[in-house]
Amino acid sequence: MSAEIICVGTELLLGDIVNTNVQFLAKELANLGIPHYYQTVVGDNPTRLKEVINIASQRASILLFTGGLGPTPDDLTTETIAQYFDSPLVEKPEIIEDIQRKFQARGRQMNDNNRKQALIPKGATILPNPTGTAPGMIWEPQANLTLMTFPGVPSEMKRMWAETAVPHLKSQGYGKEIIFSRMLRFRGIGESALATKVNRFFDLTNPTVAPYASLGEVRLRISTKTTSETEANAIIQPVAQEIIKIAGGDYFGKDDDTLAEVVGQLLRDRQETIGVAESCTGGGLGAMLTDIAGSSDYFWGGIIAYDNRVKMSLLGVTSEALEVQGAVSNIVAEQMALGVKQRLNTSWGISLTGIAGPGGGTEMKPVGLVYIGIADPDHQVHSIKCTFGDRSRDIIRYLSSCTALDQLRRKLM
Amino acid sequence: MSAEIICVGTELLLGDIVNTNVQFLAKELANLGIPHYYQTVVGDNPTRLKEVINIASQRASILLFTGGLGPTPDDLTTETIAQYFDSPLVEKPEIIEDIQRKFQARGRQMNDNNRKQALIPKGATILPNPTGTAPGMIWEPQANLTLMTFPGVPSEMKRMWAETAVPHLKSQGYGKEIIFSRMLRFRGIGESALATKVNRFFDLTNPTVAPYASLGEVRLRISTKTTSETEANAIIQPVAQEIIKIAGGDYFGKDDDTLAEVVGQLLRDRQETIGVAESCTGGGLGAMLTDIAGSSDYFWGGIIAYDNRVKMSLLGVTSEALEVQGAVSNIVAEQMALGVKQRLNTSWGISLTGIAGPGGGTEMKPVGLVYIGIADPDHQVHSIKCTFGDRSRDIIRYLSSCTALDQLRRKLM
Repeated sequence: MSAEIICVGTELLLGDIVNTNVQFLAKELANLGIPHYYQTVVGDNPTRLKEVINIASQRASILLFTGGLGPTPDDLTTETIAQYFDSPLVEKPEIIEDIQRKFQARGRQMNDNNRKQALIPKGATILPNPTGTAPGMIWEPQANLTLMTFPGVPSEMKRMWAETAVPHLKSQGYGKEIIFSRMLRFRGIGESALATKVNRFFDLTNPTVAPYASLGEVRLRISTKTTSETEANAIIQPVAQEIIKIAGGDYFGKDDDTLAEVVGQLLRDRQETIGVAESCTGGGLGAMLTDIAGSSDYFWGGIIAYDNRVKMSLLGVTSEALEVQGAVSNIVAEQMALGVKQRLNTSWGISLTGIAGPGGGTEMKPVGLVYIGIADPDHQVHSIKCTFGDRSRDIIRYLSSCTALDQLRRKLM
Repeated sequence: MSAEIICVGTELLLGDIVNTNVQFLAKELANLGIPHYYQTVVGDNPTRLKEVINIASQRASILLFTGGLGPTPDDLTTETIAQYFDSPLVEKPEIIEDIQRKFQARGRQMNDNNRKQALIPKGATILPNPTGTAPGMIWEPQANLTLMTFPGVPSEMKRMWAETAVPHLKSQGYGKEIIFSRMLRFRGIGESALATKVNRFFDLTNPTVAPYASLGEVRLRISTKTTSETEANAIIQPVAQEIIKIAGGDYFGKDDDTLAEVVGQLLRDRQETIGVAESCTGGGLGAMLTDIAGSSDYFWGGIIAYDNRVKMSLLGVTSEALEVQGAVSNIVAEQMALGVKQRLNTSWGISLTGIAGPGGGTEMKPVGLVYIGIADPDHQVHSIKCTFGDRSRDIIRYLSSCTALDQLRRKLM
């Protein structure tokens, strides 16, 4: 009883996009304990897709398809599957209604091309797509063979997978023993430095502990395979607690926690508010803070002071500071932080000024130099200097915002 | 004469890593004009790998393998290929020497495990790996079938591809005709609506025209296979111009152009400046505009007015407007746009106020309702109402910023 993933799309053969869908589904299958041995990518071509179905249906009992469910003529996954299994297509009025409703909600007219999205093979069940217009299907065209189709748009596919496909698979008896994981997240420490601290946990076999590094963040995944969440917690929790204790302030959250959420929760607990003053990030820090639903509880707003005139007129940065120390300096970061706190009347003010590049760097102030200012509820102002190195503009901006949040987190704790 | 990509690695089946290798090779094959119709991923399992080789060698004449060339017992791509074609393995002393040299340079001792990396099938040629210890091979086990193997480490694979594989393929006569593409990008029109307008181009065979949709954007790719860029342009350009003419204002750029770049270039050409006033996007529009290096030429800054007190104190939004129409309304969007333009003294002011959700929606003002205000250099203010539907918070925020930029673009044109 194994699964197989089949991704349909000429754009994948042309290398236009990275196939993140297959990674997502692979991980999900692993978590559900459903083995899968092959992944195939094929273009929007009926003959070749039929050949792939022919091979896959002989060696697997669950076929997951992504892509080719759209309204255009080259979207032909559904009709090719139906042809292969010699089944007629039937129009589902509930799909037409659903598409019409979504078009209306966006103020658009449904088009004749969309009608073909309402066709599924006779006997198949609709796999609803809550967000997009392309539904998928669940179909057993023959004994011991289940097909599921998903659109290629990752956000739609993921939601359909979680809301309908997983419950269906579980109802079929899959996923009894599954892999439970807890991810611990760290900031302000490198992967090898953290690994040295927690080295002995890497030899554990149940749970296992494995490190992952991404931009500015290190994670440790603690995993165990078992039948119940209670049992999993009993195995994972003691190890997690020990590691968190060892890591101290560098540990900031678990699983899907984000820095913005953690900071937001700390502010909410303290009933304090914050405003941002941004130069090099141009609004990115505010965007990160307001990514969190309910952030209006503590985030009041900010001033994007990209031009020095705005730094002076709206944040009270002095022309002397700009002339003597320059816009990228401790003093300007501090004036910005205090300025936005006073202007918005918030508990905290946090500021960023730096050189995101690729141009604008000098020997004294190279690309990647960023100052972070923090004004606290007692009107004390501090600033720190960060050097992110000669990296790309978007990485420097991203790391700047993350580091500002992390600095604030440490002050709030 | 088509190619096929076979990626070997259980880590790909577990979803531990994204398969960027296959995207790289896919793009390279497309550029060389070598068609490829299938990509397969298989685990470190000899039986299944042989099955994949069996299928692929019947339908393609070039097989590119990545992964499974390392020193550990589960690395078995080379020996499985040799077994499939019933060829003995021979030890290559030059590989042993190369590995020894690399180990010495890193101050390490070569291990017995590494000896197996020196084994390749009789008759195969070494595909040198300048940076790692795992070399690949180029082998013609039978007429009209060329195999190439690469390690799974992307940086090693890419260098081996560029330095040895591509010259070899060119010497075999590949890459004389390559695929040239032009991507046309559209906003403010759905995929099916655009498809209806340009339907007749989809039947063309040279160049071909194919649609792609992503969040809030539709793209058309015009492609041709030819020997020179000049000739490609002569084939692509007339079709591109016709489509651009038909699409009118919905066309915004080509290839890698972004809305923020296009808007920035229009502002720069007109020597005008802009400021942003953001509520629901919390800085995302400013971040998008300042994504572009050199945006300080026209972007001065903005005010993030998340809380109504900030809307009033810094943007001059009236309490009457807030009470009577509410923060999410035409009038508040217009007051915000005008407010930021006046406050920052910029040519243009652009504002966003809306309900990003998931909470905060009402029947009259549902989640996804967003108003965009634009104040122009003549102090005229306009606003438009957008309904993005009940989608996720991040998508609503992203589409809000994109639509604001697109509205500004249309006014600037």
